[in-house]
Amino acid sequence: MNPSLMKWWGWGRPDDQPPAAMGLAAREHLGFGPADFEEPARLEDVELRPPRVEPPDALREICSTDREARISHAYGKAYRDIVRAFRGRIDNPPDVVAYPREEHEIEHLLEWCAEAGAAAIPYGGGTSVVGGVEARGAERAVTIDLSALDRVLEVDRKSLAARVQPGASGPRLAEQLREHDLTLRHYPQSWEFATVGGWIATRAGGHYATGATHIDDFVESIRAITPRGVWQSRRLPGSGAGPSPDRMLIGSEGILGVITEAWIRVQRPPGFRASAGVQFGDLLAGGRAVRDLAQSGLMPSNCRLLDEGEATISGAAAGRALLVLGFESADHPLGPWMDRALELCHDHGGEVTDGPNLREPGTGSGSDTWRNVFLQAPYLRDTLIACGVLADTFETAITWDRFEGFVTAVRESAELAVREVCGDGRVTCRLTHAYADGAAPYFTVYAPARRGSEVEQWDAVKAAASETLIAAGGTITHHHAVGRDHRPWYDQQRPDPFADALRAAKRAVDPAGVLNPGVLIDS
Amino acid sequence: MNPSLMKWWGWGRPDDQPPAAMGLAAREHLGFGPADFEEPARLEDVELRPPRVEPPDALREICSTDREARISHAYGKAYRDIVRAFRGRIDNPPDVVAYPREEHEIEHLLEWCAEAGAAAIPYGGGTSVVGGVEARGAERAVTIDLSALDRVLEVDRKSLAARVQPGASGPRLAEQLREHDLTLRHYPQSWEFATVGGWIATRAGGHYATGATHIDDFVESIRAITPRGVWQSRRLPGSGAGPSPDRMLIGSEGILGVITEAWIRVQRPPGFRASAGVQFGDLLAGGRAVRDLAQSGLMPSNCRLLDEGEATISGAAAGRALLVLGFESADHPLGPWMDRALELCHDHGGEVTDGPNLREPGTGSGSDTWRNVFLQAPYLRDTLIACGVLADTFETAITWDRFEGFVTAVRESAELAVREVCGDGRVTCRLTHAYADGAAPYFTVYAPARRGSEVEQWDAVKAAASETLIAAGGTITHHHAVGRDHRPWYDQQRPDPFADALRAAKRAVDPAGVLNPGVLIDS
Repeated sequence: MNPSLMKWWGWGRPDDQPPAAMGLAAREHLGFGPADFEEPARLEDVELRPPRVEPPDALREICSTDREARISHAYGKAYRDIVRAFRGRIDNPPDVVAYPREEHEIEHLLEWCAEAGAAAIPYGGGTSVVGGVEARGAERAVTIDLSALDRVLEVDRKSLAARVQPGASGPRLAEQLREHDLTLRHYPQSWEFATVGGWIATRAGGHYATGATHIDDFVESIRAITPRGVWQSRRLPGSGAGPSPDRMLIGSEGILGVITEAWIRVQRPPGFRASAGVQFGDLLAGGRAVRDLAQSGLMPSNCRLLDEGEATISGAAAGRALLVLGFESADHPLGPWMDRALELCHDHGGEVTDGPNLREPGTGSGSDTWRNVFLQAPYLRDTLIACGVLADTFETAITWDRFEGFVTAVRESAELAVREVCGDGRVTCRLTHAYADGAAPYFTVYAPARRGSEVEQWDAVKAAASETLIAAGGTITHHHAVGRDHRPWYDQQRPDPFADALRAAKRAVDPAGVLNPGVLIDS
Repeated sequence: MNPSLMKWWGWGRPDDQPPAAMGLAAREHLGFGPADFEEPARLEDVELRPPRVEPPDALREICSTDREARISHAYGKAYRDIVRAFRGRIDNPPDVVAYPREEHEIEHLLEWCAEAGAAAIPYGGGTSVVGGVEARGAERAVTIDLSALDRVLEVDRKSLAARVQPGASGPRLAEQLREHDLTLRHYPQSWEFATVGGWIATRAGGHYATGATHIDDFVESIRAITPRGVWQSRRLPGSGAGPSPDRMLIGSEGILGVITEAWIRVQRPPGFRASAGVQFGDLLAGGRAVRDLAQSGLMPSNCRLLDEGEATISGAAAGRALLVLGFESADHPLGPWMDRALELCHDHGGEVTDGPNLREPGTGSGSDTWRNVFLQAPYLRDTLIACGVLADTFETAITWDRFEGFVTAVRESAELAVREVCGDGRVTCRLTHAYADGAAPYFTVYAPARRGSEVEQWDAVKAAASETLIAAGGTITHHHAVGRDHRPWYDQQRPDPFADALRAAKRAVDPAGVLNPGVLIDS
């Protein structure tokens, strides 16, 4: 049995919790005034529904009905998940948690689920922020935890590709690729715990601000177990043979099959780096520079624009928008790239306040300082919950023609909702990914929570923002996936005949409808 | 009625046929000895099956049962198509050719086809080389020619995107975008006649050797008419909301719906250019440089490697492989890019024999010389057919780890087949597109044809090469699509559960099975 690495109710290992003082200071910094520090519920006090189904003898060895296993697999890591667990409220625990070690065990698990009328919920790192792993509405549920399948099985150095198992977390994958002097360079904020299979299943967004923004582009082929057999695509660098089978699985969020292997595109570590910080008057001014950068063909690896609120809260720049700009290469120095990028920033009134810093291979630690700070955010959120701060994010994407009005409308809608619902609050925005035709705005909400009503408060804020962004032409998610939480807006967004096609495709490969029911579509 | 721009039996407008002397000289140059120049069948001598279905009154205005219309829409432009038409053999003419001018007419056509039990075959430029528009096996067939829907409806300069109708050919699209100083830069060899809707439906490969190699990456959203309603996706620069609806239509080859509009990503004309010609000992040596270039992140727009045979036949380089390397940008000079690329070529023994040529905006004519030569090839093929030369191409893609053995095996297999089937012949290879993890080899076959048996000869050569490349792990097509001709090998290549899913998806949106039956899957 491989227990979850994370603490049962929130983010990170049990010992990694930022202290109460840090949360209370953050609360103060946000202007929400003093508050008590609340302790999370104790595991032993959690009331848990007894399992409604028992594994058959043949699968008993890889199955657990253990309390902690069921509790810690009940939710993802959205604010609404963590706050419920924090209070000891486990709404929809799986009845069984299975830890397969071999493909044939997954086949048997799916057969058993079909016979038992149980939902089968593929589970990577459990970091879904959209209700993707919660057995909501299922009469019986088996969570299939893939963490035992965490190996890099094969490396093809010539093609810069690796055959990997789905349960490898970011660090587990990195340590195995490092032996070959290779790296994936895909860093969602959940990188420490999320898994490569989960990234593929949810179309995760990663490290690159331009170009290969999503895991989609790193996928060379996929192998998945469906109730109707093995879905295995060929390793191909490119193909035009019909609609891409991989693109049907990428983003399928576990409803078509359980991913058991993938060939992914990896690369040599980028020894050459160039970075700079550029300040702008506000997000809209910075946004015009980001647009030019995205349309320039320079392909910065980092092009993250914090609005004035976010730059101020984080202490990065007071009252101004901050563009964190970076280039990287395993092949060549990046001076000309950065020079031209800074010219474009200058054209839009950008002021370089840090750098440009150029690094050659073998100099510096190679660490990604920015990344490490970025990865800390979810840890702090747990402490903020204990301090009565509502803290979560939502994200979208929009074309440039509508960008300025869109960001303004969505922010205002969220601000209005937090004021109405919480009496106070802050909404900040950053651009995480940039395209020639648009950008991905990412919003962070902080508000004083009314203890015990946090889920309803957050749901109201999220609904208000979601209504606005869907009405204004955005996507309900650029890289957080749909899951169950985004269904009301996803259902407005996707083409109806596509939903019909997807439902039919699911029925064809999963006739009993066991795979993650309720996600993306109703069967 | 908008008659086909091309001559009824082959490529190009009737007046653009290269003269007999040029074909006979090419035949001589290939070493196949002298031959007679055969004249094509006369249109009036073609025996044509009478229409098996008549359009209803409400659709009569946009429908034709005219002889020339039916004959000229019967085939695509594969060698096996042209040689049949050249001899006056029209195996599967459509019964009716429809020319809708409005979406609702397409809806009515699909309703009528369902009632009449007729196949509905969406038709763009008719340039399929895989039997994609031939009504093979259909009891009744209506070809839906989309050439009347050829406008650019809207341009979004901020997002560099345009809303286009499906029937716009390459030049028609270019001339409308030029008014806005924009360009798509997507140049399949069929560019002059093929349409943007056809490119999307077939996942066409285009101009860029690296990065956005296929039309897929230029598609921002699609609108299609299915028998079950309108399939319309949102304009989004990127999204993670479920499997991409666009990626299910891209490559669907007309089996799910008729594309009626798309937002496509366009760009400012690339005023900055850098180009060079680099010679290598052979294709394999050049291939190692191409691999390094593709893995460098430099993203050349052209990186086309002709093998020693192809370079010799075309007169570009005698007995050596030739890499045609190019960079382009609307934003910045490309000296540093080209400098580094040539260093990489040098590391693999490359010898720069042309350039580097750097051009700034406003200098030079802006014409694409190489492109213009490239677009001439299909014209010459018609003349070669008249001179008794079998001439066609096939293409694939493979990862770098298998590249050298793969290219050698496929070429040998094709060479063996042409010698067995035709007694003599040449097989050459070029790399058209390059990826960090592999490349797309493109093979050209020339052989002395046995007049009257060309189809069987070509089919035998094609089958031998296809068996080899599928057995060796390649794709049956990197950018020519599947159609009907590639089915035996595509059926081995695609995952079985994916085929089940696609069949089910088609039944969901096209319950009567009218849309291009026989392509990709059997219903």
